[in-house]
Amino acid sequence: MRLGFVGLGPMGAAMAHRLIGAGHALTVWNRTQDKTRPLAEAGARVADTPAEAASAAEIVVSSVANDAALEAVTMGPDGVVAGLAEGALHVSASTVSMALVKKIASAHAARGQDFVSAPVLGRPPAAEAGKLFIMAAGDASALVRAAPVFDVIGQRIFVLGAQPALANLAKLACNFLIFSTIEQFSEVFALVEKGGLDRAKIFELLTESFFTAPVHKNYGRQILDRSYEAGVKVTLGAKDTKLFLEAGEALCVPLPMASLIRDRFLAALARGEADMDFTVIARQAAEQAGLA
Amino acid sequence: MRLGFVGLGPMGAAMAHRLIGAGHALTVWNRTQDKTRPLAEAGARVADTPAEAASAAEIVVSSVANDAALEAVTMGPDGVVAGLAEGALHVSASTVSMALVKKIASAHAARGQDFVSAPVLGRPPAAEAGKLFIMAAGDASALVRAAPVFDVIGQRIFVLGAQPALANLAKLACNFLIFSTIEQFSEVFALVEKGGLDRAKIFELLTESFFTAPVHKNYGRQILDRSYEAGVKVTLGAKDTKLFLEAGEALCVPLPMASLIRDRFLAALARGEADMDFTVIARQAAEQAGLA
Amino acid sequence: MRLGFVGLGPMGAAMAHRLIGAGHALTVWNRTQDKTRPLAEAGARVADTPAEAASAAEIVVSSVANDAALEAVTMGPDGVVAGLAEGALHVSASTVSMALVKKIASAHAARGQDFVSAPVLGRPPAAEAGKLFIMAAGDASALVRAAPVFDVIGQRIFVLGAQPALANLAKLACNFLIFSTIEQFSEVFALVEKGGLDRAKIFELLTESFFTAPVHKNYGRQILDRSYEAGVKVTLGAKDTKLFLEAGEALCVPLPMASLIRDRFLAALARGEADMDFTVIARQAAEQAGLA
Amino acid sequence: MRLGFVGLGPMGAAMAHRLIGAGHALTVWNRTQDKTRPLAEAGARVADTPAEAASAAEIVVSSVANDAALEAVTMGPDGVVAGLAEGALHVSASTVSMALVKKIASAHAARGQDFVSAPVLGRPPAAEAGKLFIMAAGDASALVRAAPVFDVIGQRIFVLGAQPALANLAKLACNFLIFSTIEQFSEVFALVEKGGLDRAKIFELLTESFFTAPVHKNYGRQILDRSYEAGVKVTLGAKDTKLFLEAGEALCVPLPMASLIRDRFLAALARGEADMDFTVIARQAAEQAGLA
Repeated sequence: MRLGFVGLGPMGAAMAHRLIGAGHALTVWNRTQDKTRPLAEAGARVADTPAEAASAAEIVVSSVANDAALEAVTMGPDGVVAGLAEGALHVSASTVSMALVKKIASAHAARGQDFVSAPVLGRPPAAEAGKLFIMAAGDASALVRAAPVFDVIGQRIFVLGAQPALANLAKLACNFLIFSTIEQFSEVFALVEKGGLDRAKIFELLTESFFTAPVHKNYGRQILDRSYEAGVKVTLGAKDTKLFLEAGEALCVPLPMASLIRDRFLAALARGEADMDFTVIARQAAEQAGLA
Repeated sequence: MRLGFVGLGPMGAAMAHRLIGAGHALTVWNRTQDKTRPLAEAGARVADTPAEAASAAEIVVSSVANDAALEAVTMGPDGVVAGLAEGALHVSASTVSMALVKKIASAHAARGQDFVSAPVLGRPPAAEAGKLFIMAAGDASALVRAAPVFDVIGQRIFVLGAQPALANLAKLACNFLIFSTIEQFSEVFALVEKGGLDRAKIFELLTESFFTAPVHKNYGRQILDRSYEAGVKVTLGAKDTKLFLEAGEALCVPLPMASLIRDRFLAALARGEADMDFTVIARQAAEQAGLA
Repeated sequence: MRLGFVGLGPMGAAMAHRLIGAGHALTVWNRTQDKTRPLAEAGARVADTPAEAASAAEIVVSSVANDAALEAVTMGPDGVVAGLAEGALHVSASTVSMALVKKIASAHAARGQDFVSAPVLGRPPAAEAGKLFIMAAGDASALVRAAPVFDVIGQRIFVLGAQPALANLAKLACNFLIFSTIEQFSEVFALVEKGGLDRAKIFELLTESFFTAPVHKNYGRQILDRSYEAGVKVTLGAKDTKLFLEAGEALCVPLPMASLIRDRFLAALARGEADMDFTVIARQAAEQAGLA
Repeated sequence: MRLGFVGLGPMGAAMAHRLIGAGHALTVWNRTQDKTRPLAEAGARVADTPAEAASAAEIVVSSVANDAALEAVTMGPDGVVAGLAEGALHVSASTVSMALVKKIASAHAARGQDFVSAPVLGRPPAAEAGKLFIMAAGDASALVRAAPVFDVIGQRIFVLGAQPALANLAKLACNFLIFSTIEQFSEVFALVEKGGLDRAKIFELLTESFFTAPVHKNYGRQILDRSYEAGVKVTLGAKDTKLFLEAGEALCVPLPMASLIRDRFLAALARGEADMDFTVIARQAAEQAGLA
C-alpha cells in the first residue's frame, strides 16, 4: 500500500520502519530532516511537508509529541488535511487532547477525508516488534481500511467507538493508570524501606501474587532499581496528566488521584528533572519520608 | 501434627477445614461456639478457651478480625500465650497492626514460645483450595517448623525477615495497593462513562493489555458489574487503611494516596455502607461526577 | 474626565454608576444592550461597539466575566485595542488569566496605548459604595493616570509591580484563599456538628478570637446559614480555580490545596449547582460525613 | 481561693504566675522540679505529686503537653483524681483527645468531683497578659465555679456545652484552622514568588483587605520572614493534627484538608524539624516549587 508517515520521533520511527519492513511504500516527513535518513536508507521517500507526505498516500499515519505539534502538521497550510486526497485516510497515533481530535475529525470530514484516531500503548521496542496495543476509534469502514496498518504494528486492536476522540480518552486513562501505579509503588517502597523491610522482597511478593501485570513488573522494577535515566520524559508525563485532568474538567469529573500525580510532575519539573524518565516522580515519596 | 486453631471466621474456618483435610489433629476455638460445629463434625476437638486450644498443640494458628480480637485471644488470661507450651509455636495469620505484633512477639519470647506472623493474601475460596499467598516473618527455625502448615493452605510463601511485624507491614501494603487500585478504576470508569465510552470496553482494553493482574481483573470486574453486596466488608477496609496510615505515622512517612482512600472509607461508613463489600467506595467517584 | 466603560455585569454596572455619580462623562457598552439602559438614564452615552466606547475616552475601563469575553471585547475587530486613541489608557478590572493579560498588554504597547491591569476584591455593593480593594499593576505613569478612577471605586489601591499580569496573579491568589477558607469551614462545621457541638457556637468562637477577618465572617456566616442561593456563581469559582492552577502549571508550582478545591467545584457543577453561590461547595464535606 | 496547678510548661507557668499575681494561694507541681522554682519564689507551695497539689485545692488546674502526660498526672496513683476532695473542681486546659477527656470526666464523676475541660487559644505571652481565649465545657455549675480562674487568665470565655470533650473538639478545630491557614499562605507565597511578585506586597495586600485576622497576620508574617526557630514545636502540630483526624475517624467525617496537613507534618518530622516552630511546614510548598 502507498503510505505516508508524519513524525519520526522514537515511536514514529519504530512504526515507520516496521511498515517498510512489511513491504509498504512509505513517504515520510519529519520536522528535523536528519531523522528521515535511516528511513530513506531503508527505501522511504522523503517529503518536504506533511501535505506532501499525505498527497500520494492511501493512508497517512501521524505520530507526534503533543497537541501543538499535531495541530501544526495537520491543520497548518502544509498540513496533512491540505495534502490528503478526498477519500484517503489519516490515522493519528499521537497521545493528544480529545478537543484537538474533535477539531481534526471535523476538518477531515469537511474535505471528504477519512479519519481514525489510534493512539498506542507500548514503548519503541514494542513498536519495532509489532507488539503495540492499539486503541482505535472512528467510522467502522475507516477502521477496516486501517486494519492492514494496525496488523503490522500491533499485537491487539481495541475498537472503542465511532467518535475518534474516544480512543484518546482511553489512552489518557491508560497513562493515568501507569502514573498512579508509580505513585502506589512509591508510597509502598518508602514505607517498607523505612520500616526495615527489604524493597526487593516486597517487589517479589507483589509481582508474584496479586500484582503481576506488566504495569507492576515494568514500572515497579524501574523504581526498585531507581533507574530514572532513559525512557519517556517527565514532560510527556506532565502533558498527559494535564490532558487527563482537562478531560475531567470538560466533563465535570473530579479526579483526586490524578491531581496528586499532577503535583508530582510539577515538582519534578520544578527541580530540573524534565528530561528524566517519568518514573523519577517516585523519588518524591521517598524524600518526603526522609530517605536519601 | 497436633494443631490448635483460634478464630473461625470465613478465613479461619476455610484454613482449619483444609488442615483437617490434610490429616492434622485440630483443637479449635471460636468466640461464638456455633461456628465450631462444622469443624467438630469434620473431626476437630472443640476447646473452651484459646488457652485450651493452644495447650496440647505443637503449633497453634490464630486468625481473627482485628487488633482487639487478637489481643483478647492472645494476651488475655485464657489466651494463647497463657496456654501454649514452652517451645511450641504460634502462627498469627491476622491482618493487624505492627505494634500489636511486636507486643505479642515479646510475650511469647518471655515464655520461651516461638512466634511467626503470617498474614495471607486471598479470599476464603482460595484458602479452601490451598491457594493463599502467605507473607511470613519470624525466626528462621520457627519458619521451618511452620512450613507444613503453610504448605497445606498456601500456594506460595514469601519470607520477609526475622521481625514478625514485617509480615504485617507487607500485608498492609498489599491491602493499600488493592484499595488504591479500586480508586484508580473508580476515577477512570467515572470519566470514560461520562465521556461516552463504554465501561466494558475500557475494562477489556485495560485487563488485556498492561493491566492484567488479578488485582485488576477481580476488583475491576466487581466495579464494572457494580456488585457490592457480598465479600469483605467496608469496616475491614477502613481498619486496614487506618493501620497502614498509623504505620506511616509511626515511621514518619507521608502517604497521600492512602489518605485519599481513608476518606473514601469514612464516607462509606458515614452513609451506612459498613457491611457492603469494600469495593463499594467506587460509587463515590461516580457520584461526584454526577452519575447515578 | 471622558471615560469609556465596557461590560455592565453586576460589578461593571456598579462601578460605572459610581463613576457617573462622581461627575465623569461615560460612554458605555455591553454585549446585551438592555443592561445599558439604567446607565443611559443616569446620563451615559451608549456605544455600539467596545471600540466606539473606547474611541473618545482618555481612559476606558473593562469588566467582564472571563478570558473569552475579555479577549472578544479587547482584541476583536471592534474591540478596545482597535478603538482606543494612541496614548490613551485601558484599565482592565476583570479576573482573567495571566496569559491573556500579557497578550493584551503587548497589543496595547504595539499601538502606543497604555494599559493597567486592576482586578478588584469585593462584591457589587462594595463597588457601589466605592469600597473595593484594587490590585493594580502596570507602568508607574499609567498607574498615576488611573488614580482618579481608582479613587472613585476603591477604598485602597495595592500597587503590585510594572507587569500588568502580576495584578491578576494576586487576584487569583485572593480568590483561592477565599475558596480554601470555605473548605476549612466546611470540614470544621461537618466535624463539630457530627460531634454534637453547636455550629453557631463554634462560628462565634472562631470569628471572635483568631479568625476575625472578613473572609471568615462573611463566608463562614453563609455556610452557617446554608444560604447558597444568591451571589457569585459556582461557574466563576470554578473558572478562577482553573486559572489559579494554570498559573501553577505554567510556573511549575504544585498546589495541592487548590486541587482539592478544583474537585469540589467540578462536583458542584456535575450535580447541577452551576448557578448557585460558590459557597455551596461547603455542602460536600457535610454530605460526605453523612449529614443531610 | 486555694488553687492547685499541675504542669508548668511555657503555657502552664504563664497561667500560674498570673493566678498568683491575682492573689490566689497556689500549690504547684511539675514533672521536673526545677521549673517550680520561679513559682515558689513568687509564693507558691510546691507539691511532690499531682495528688498533693490537688488535695487542698478548691480548684486544681492542669496544663500538660499531650494525652500521655495528662493521663499520667490525672489517672495515675498519685494523680489529680486520687488527691482531689469530693466536691472540688478540676479544670483541664490541655489540648488532648476527646476520648481521654471522656475518660477523665467519668473518673471525676465516679468520685463526686467536678470537672471542666477548658483548652485555651493563645501563646504564653497572651497567658501572662490574661488575654487567652478560653473554650470551656462542662456542667453549668462547675463552669460558674471556674469563672474566677477564667477571668484572670482569659480575655473571653466561650461556653461550648455540658460535655467536657466538646471544648477539646473546638480546640482541635481551631488548631486545624491555624495549620491549614499556614498551608494557604505557603502555596500562595510559593506561586507568587515564582511568578515574580514580591511576597511582602502580597502579604500587605492580603492582611489589609479580606484576610485581616490574627491567624493571617501572625502566621503569615512568620512565613514571610521565614522565622521558624522559636515558638510551638512541629511535634505539637503533628500531635494536634493526629487528634483532629482521629476525631474525624471516630465520627466518620472525611477531612481531606487535614490529611494534607498531616503529610506536611510527617515530612517535617522525617527531615529532622521536630523542634522547629510548626510554621516550618511552609517550606515544603516552596521547595516543591523549586525555590531554595
